[in-house]
Amino acid sequence: MSSTQFTDFARYKEQRAALISSNLNRSLRPDHSVTVSAAEAKADKFVRELRAAISIWGTEHEGVPIPFPGMQFLTGRSIISTTKLFNFLIPKGGLLHAHLEATVNAEYVLKIALEQPALHVRSTAPHSALNLSKILPQFSPFPRKMFTDSDTALTDTFYSPDTWVSLKKARASFDPALGGPAGFDKWVIAAMVISPAEGQSIGPAINLFEEKFTDTFTVSNGLPRFTPVWKQYIYEFLRASVEDGVSYVETRINFYSKYMFGEDGQEKVPHHDWLKIFDETLGEFKAELKSQEREDEFIGARIIYSTLRLIDLEELEWYREDCITLKQELPHLIADSTSFRCFDLVGPENMLKPLIYYAEDLLRFRERQKEVGVDIPFILHAGETLGDGTEADVNLYDAILLGTLRFGHGFSLVKHPKLMKTCREKGILNEVCPISNEILRLTSSMPMHPLPILINNGLPVTLCSDDPAVFRNMGLTFDFYQISLRVLSRSEVTGLIALRELARDSLKHSTLEPSEKQRAISAWRKRWKKSVESIVDFTK
Amino acid sequence: MSSTQFTDFARYKEQRAALISSNLNRSLRPDHSVTVSAAEAKADKFVRELRAAISIWGTEHEGVPIPFPGMQFLTGRSIISTTKLFNFLIPKGGLLHAHLEATVNAEYVLKIALEQPALHVRSTAPHSALNLSKILPQFSPFPRKMFTDSDTALTDTFYSPDTWVSLKKARASFDPALGGPAGFDKWVIAAMVISPAEGQSIGPAINLFEEKFTDTFTVSNGLPRFTPVWKQYIYEFLRASVEDGVSYVETRINFYSKYMFGEDGQEKVPHHDWLKIFDETLGEFKAELKSQEREDEFIGARIIYSTLRLIDLEELEWYREDCITLKQELPHLIADSTSFRCFDLVGPENMLKPLIYYAEDLLRFRERQKEVGVDIPFILHAGETLGDGTEADVNLYDAILLGTLRFGHGFSLVKHPKLMKTCREKGILNEVCPISNEILRLTSSMPMHPLPILINNGLPVTLCSDDPAVFRNMGLTFDFYQISLRVLSRSEVTGLIALRELARDSLKHSTLEPSEKQRAISAWRKRWKKSVESIVDFTK
Repeated sequence: MSSTQFTDFARYKEQRAALISSNLNRSLRPDHSVTVSAAEAKADKFVRELRAAISIWGTEHEGVPIPFPGMQFLTGRSIISTTKLFNFLIPKGGLLHAHLEATVNAEYVLKIALEQPALHVRSTAPHSALNLSKILPQFSPFPRKMFTDSDTALTDTFYSPDTWVSLKKARASFDPALGGPAGFDKWVIAAMVISPAEGQSIGPAINLFEEKFTDTFTVSNGLPRFTPVWKQYIYEFLRASVEDGVSYVETRINFYSKYMFGEDGQEKVPHHDWLKIFDETLGEFKAELKSQEREDEFIGARIIYSTLRLIDLEELEWYREDCITLKQELPHLIADSTSFRCFDLVGPENMLKPLIYYAEDLLRFRERQKEVGVDIPFILHAGETLGDGTEADVNLYDAILLGTLRFGHGFSLVKHPKLMKTCREKGILNEVCPISNEILRLTSSMPMHPLPILINNGLPVTLCSDDPAVFRNMGLTFDFYQISLRVLSRSEVTGLIALRELARDSLKHSTLEPSEKQRAISAWRKRWKKSVESIVDFTK
Repeated sequence: MSSTQFTDFARYKEQRAALISSNLNRSLRPDHSVTVSAAEAKADKFVRELRAAISIWGTEHEGVPIPFPGMQFLTGRSIISTTKLFNFLIPKGGLLHAHLEATVNAEYVLKIALEQPALHVRSTAPHSALNLSKILPQFSPFPRKMFTDSDTALTDTFYSPDTWVSLKKARASFDPALGGPAGFDKWVIAAMVISPAEGQSIGPAINLFEEKFTDTFTVSNGLPRFTPVWKQYIYEFLRASVEDGVSYVETRINFYSKYMFGEDGQEKVPHHDWLKIFDETLGEFKAELKSQEREDEFIGARIIYSTLRLIDLEELEWYREDCITLKQELPHLIADSTSFRCFDLVGPENMLKPLIYYAEDLLRFRERQKEVGVDIPFILHAGETLGDGTEADVNLYDAILLGTLRFGHGFSLVKHPKLMKTCREKGILNEVCPISNEILRLTSSMPMHPLPILINNGLPVTLCSDDPAVFRNMGLTFDFYQISLRVLSRSEVTGLIALRELARDSLKHSTLEPSEKQRAISAWRKRWKKSVESIVDFTK
C-alpha cells in the first residue's frame, strides 16, 4: 500500500477507514461487536467525559504536591478515593488472584489482634527515633501459663532484644517521645505495608525492594496464624470484598506452615482445621447476607492450595499428599463451593525455583490424583517478570504443559507471539494485577502496562488485587480505577464496555461448575444493569 | 495440551522442547537460524558473562549512591562509561533517527560559540542564586555595527531584562558569587540538557516535563543557527558519530525557520545555503578521513527534510515547494549521497497536529513531485505515545497509507497485532530510540521497553539516539549499551548476535541506493569481524 496508489483523497479516506476498521477496531478484542444497550452507551460516554476532565489532578492536595493522572498508585491513592469515577461502584464479578494472608487491611488486623491477650510482640533491638523504621516487630501467641507479666517497654533503653512483651502492654508502654500508643500503631502498620515513599523511591536496587516486600509478609503473617484472629480475618476479607462489589472469590491460601496457633497458644492446628474454620466462617457470612436478603451479592469462595517455590521435591511430596488428603477429608466443602479446587506454587519467580524443577513431580501428582479419584488441576504463577527467556519467563511454557487453567500474572506473555495465539485458542486467562505490577516495578506507571496488548490480542484477562493488604488496594475498585484511568484517559478504543467484559470474564474463567457459573453471571448481569442505570441517573 | 496426556516425564520433556523451539526460539526473530562464527559465539558468551557479573553496579560510586543495572540512564550514565562492556566499540552501522539541531554536546557548542564575537546573550531577569535554574539564556548573532560595548553583567542587580550582552563578556563578568565564568557555563549548559535530577523526578506532570524538553531546544537552537557555528557543528556531529562506530547517518534537519544568521549577522541565509554548507563540510570531513586512509569508516550522510507539526496547511504548501526546489537546485548532493531523500513532520505527537490533518496535502505533495520529476518519499514520526487509539497512535495508520518507508519511533505499534503483521510483511522498520523513550517517560527503565516484543515478532528495528545533545547519549554506544544491559542481563534469548542484526538492519533499511548499500554493508561486516576478534582477544 504505497501512497502512489491514491489519486484522490476520497480514495485515501476509504482505504483508511477500511484499514482502521480491520486493524484498529480490533476484531480480537472482547468488546468488539458486542451488544451495547442505550443506557450503557450513555454511561460509557459520561464516564469518558469524567476521565477527560481529570480536573482533580490539576490542583494541589494535602500531602500530594504535584498530582497527575499517571502518577504512582501509592502516592495518588488518597486523591483517587475522592474522585467521582471512584465512587461509581460497578460490580466486579470474581476476584481470582489474591493471597489470603495479604488481603485484610493492617489497621483492622492490629485492632483485632489487640483484643487477644495471648498475642505477644518482640523486637530485635530497643527502639529509638533513629532505628524505628529499621526494626521489625515479630508477633506470636502464647499459652496462658507463658503470658509475660514484664512491664518492660519495647522502647526502654534496657529492653533486652527478642524479649516477648504482651501486645497490649507493648502498645500502652510505647515511649511517648516516639508517639506513644499511636506511635506503636504507626510502627507496626508501616512494617506491614509499602509506604508511598518506599513505592516511589526508584533508586534502591530491586533486591532491596524485594526484601521490603518479603518483610511485610513476615511481619503480618504472625497475626492471622492464630485461630481467633484467623476467623475474624477471613470474615473481614469476605465482607470487604462484597462491600466492594466482588461477588465471588478464589483465594490462594499459603499452606507452607504446617500448623497455626490455636486458642490455647499451641502451634498445633493442622491444615484440616484451617479449612474447617474457613468453611464455618464462610457459612456464617453467607447466613448473614441471607438474613439481609443480599444472597445474590455473593456466590461463594474457593481456595487454591498454595505453597512456596522454595521447597524441595521431598517437601513437595508432603504437600501433594496433604492437598489430596484435605480434598478427601472435606468433601462437603466442595458441595458448598468451598474447595481447594486447584494447586499453585507461589513466591517471587525471579528469585525462587522454576516450574521445570517441579514438573516431573507435578505430573506424578496428577497421576496420583487419578488413582485416588480426586481432581485438583493447576492454576500456576508464571511470567511475573520483566525477563525474556529467563527461567521465570519460561515458566509460562511449563505452566501450559502442566495444564494450567489460568496464568497467575502471565506478565511476560506479551513477548511470546506464538504462545499468545495458543493461549487465545485454549482460552487461558491472565490474572492481571495492575497495582501489584506497578508497585513491584514490573511497570512503573499505568500507561506503561502491557494490558492493552493482551486485550487487543484477544486474550482473556481479569483484574486482580494480588496482595491488597501490602499494596493498599483493597477490593477491586482501585485496580479497576487504575485501569479506567489509564484506559479512559489514554485510549479511545477502550471504555466502560471493556470493563464489563473483564468483569464478566472473571466469572466465565472461574472454576465454578457450569450451573453455578450461570447463576453467578446472571446475578452479576442484573447488578451491572443497575450500576449502569445509576450512572445514567447521575447524568440527569 | 493438558497435563493428563503425559504418561511419563520423558514425553513431557520431548513436548516441552518442541513447544519451546517452536515458540521461545522464535522463528520470527532476526537472530533466528542465522550463521554464527566460532569467534562470534565466543564473544557472545564472554559479553553475556560480563553482563551477568554486573559487579560495577554493586558498589558505591561518586554521586551515584545506590547504583543498579536497570537504573535511569541519566543517573547511571557516569558508571556506564567506566564499564568494560561500554568500551568494546562495536560498529553500529547507520544512525537513522537523529535531529541534527540536537546532536552535538552542549560543552562543545558553547566552546565554539565563544569564539564568535558576533554572538550575544540576554536573559529575562537579573540573575541570583535563587532564580538561576529558572532563567533561560537566549542567544543571537549581531552585525558588527550592532555589537554592544555594554559592560553590564547579566548578574548585575541593575541588569535591565532582555538587554543583549556580548557572549564572551557575559561569561567573563558573571558574578563570582554565582561561580564566575564556570558558573556561566554551568547555567548555559543546564538549560540545554536534561539533568539527572530532572530526568529522575517522577512527580511533575508530564506537561511540565515536556516544557523543559522544549526549552532545551529553544535555548540551544540559538547557537548553530549562525553559519560559522553551523559549519563546525556539522563537522563535530560527523566526527563524533564516526568516532563512535557509526558509519552512515540519515539526519533530520528542521527547516521550520526560513533563514539562519550569516557571518554578517543578518538573518538572511536561506535553506539552500544551509545545505550547501552541509555539503561542503561533509566533503571536507570525507577528505580528512581519506587522508587518514579511513574512508571505509564512513559511507556518507543524507538529510531528511523536516518541519514542525504545528504548521497549518498553507504553511505546509510553502515547505513542500521549498523541499522540491532544494531537491531540484542541488542535484549534485544526490550523487554524493547527500540529499534530503525524504520528508517528515516532527515534534511531540501527543501535543501537535495529527497526520490526518495533513494527509490530503501530503498526497498532493507526492503528486506534485511526480509532475516535476523528483522523488521525496516520507519517513514519518508516528506512534511516539503511550496512547491506545489516540491521535498520536492513529498516526501509525496514516503513516502507512502515506507510504512511509520507516516509522520515526513507532513506539505504540506493539498494541496493534494486525498492523504489526502488515509492517513485518512490508518490511517497515521502527526507528527505536531507547534512551529518548526512557527520558521522555514512554518507558521508565530499560527492562520495561517494548523492544523485545518488536524483535520477537520479527519486526525490523534499529537503535537511534533521537536528541543526543539533550539526553547526553552521543553516538550510539549508550543506546546499544542500554539495550545490551537490558537484553543481556534480563534475556537468555538475545545476545551479541541480535545486536549484529540490529546494526546490519540499520544499513539494510537506509535509503542508500542498492550498490551503495552493498558497499556499506560489506565495509561494516569487515569492521564487525575485527570487533568480534578484539573481544575474543580480550578473553585470552
